Amino acid sequence: MPDLDTNLPSIRQIQSLIKEKKEVELKVVTGDLIAGKIFWQDSECLSVLDHYDRQTVIWKHAIVFIQPKA
Amino acid sequence: MPDLDTNLPSIRQIQSLIKEKKEVELKVVTGDLIAGKIFWQDSECLSVLDHYDRQTVIWKHAIVFIQPKA
Amino acid sequence: MPDLDTNLPSIRQIQSLIKEKKEVELKVVTGDLIAGKIFWQDSECLSVLDHYDRQTVIWKHAIVFIQPKA
Amino acid sequence: MPDLDTNLPSIRQIQSLIKEKKEVELKVVTGDLIAGKIFWQDSECLSVLDHYDRQTVIWKHAIVFIQPKA
Amino acid sequence: MPDLDTNLPSIRQIQSLIKEKKEVELKVVTGDLIAGKIFWQDSECLSVLDHYDRQTVIWKHAIVFIQPKA
Amino acid sequence: MPDLDTNLPSIRQIQSLIKEKKEVELKVVTGDLIAGKIFWQDSECLSVLDHYDRQTVIWKHAIVFIQPKA
Repeated sequence: MPDLDTNLPSIRQIQSLIKEKKEVELKVVTGDLIAGKIFWQDSECLSVLDHYDRQTVIWKHAIVFIQPKA
Repeated sequence: MPDLDTNLPSIRQIQSLIKEKKEVELKVVTGDLIAGKIFWQDSECLSVLDHYDRQTVIWKHAIVFIQPKA
Repeated sequence: MPDLDTNLPSIRQIQSLIKEKKEVELKVVTGDLIAGKIFWQDSECLSVLDHYDRQTVIWKHAIVFIQPKA
Repeated sequence: MPDLDTNLPSIRQIQSLIKEKKEVELKVVTGDLIAGKIFWQDSECLSVLDHYDRQTVIWKHAIVFIQPKA
Repeated sequence: MPDLDTNLPSIRQIQSLIKEKKEVELKVVTGDLIAGKIFWQDSECLSVLDHYDRQTVIWKHAIVFIQPKA
Repeated sequence: MPDLDTNLPSIRQIQSLIKEKKEVELKVVTGDLIAGKIFWQDSECLSVLDHYDRQTVIWKHAIVFIQPKA
């Protein structure tokens, strides 16, 4: 199992976003922009909850960038 | 053989979707949206059954995100 | 050499498609849809024969999904 | 943990850009051009700060190229 | 060094195309179609010579499929 | 550290292009064509200098092909 490396700044930054329940925007390779709060991450995926509590599980290999919501 | 890591939240969430026969939508890198019920997963692929019981085998490297059907 | 893992459901499903000479459609990352019968697979590629017995060798990293022909 | 290999010229060049707070442009796979100063890098991601100090965390697998700002 | 695995059918098929100097068409992820004769391959790249003996070195990760010239 | 494998023909060909300061064109996954002289390579990236000595650092995972300038 590829454990989540909690020493990596990028992994820790996402852990902070989860704890602080910050609104974020995620751009994925199809060009879609997914907005919401990150709910959990593992080594493969991120889970995002939108305003309607709908959950989207996003594969990390398909993520381009993440930003605080504008 | 890269076994399916059943400790990963993302793998377990998909296992739940399989057991509960939930309708899902899968976005892939070409922008196509594939709807149906997940039938099985292994470390490489997911299999989805649509309303006509037609099976689509999707490579995980091509998946962007998965959502409960709207 | 990365051997073909014949314990994986996805690998075995493709092996069945080869034996049964089923007509399939393969969607690739460029959006092209390739139709024909799968002739062989290895860990890197799939080979597909069309109606004119023209062979296309497709890299697995470029495959999005495979379906029985509609 | 995949440590950052500080012997690689590409890693060191990015470390220099961080120290010198150079303005750069990053092209990503969606075609977006992200401008700003690189704030940190790890083996998975780069962080870029724009003129409004908004932080964007970019996955390295999604980066095409980096240039000094024109 | 990742040696070229000459036991793989896909690697051997390309070796045959090189020996027989067959005209091929290569589709890459940008949608471009590159025509010519394969000159050499290694584990990372293929080299193709066109009618003007211009050489193109193509990364295997960017290849979608290869076909005999129509 | 993934050392640059100088036994690979593709790596050596790029090393030759660097020594001979040949004008090349690089196609990347976004469809952009980058022209210039290759300045250095490591296992992750290539650096290209254009006519104005502007340096572009290109990730190898994003390169489709390289050609001598037409």
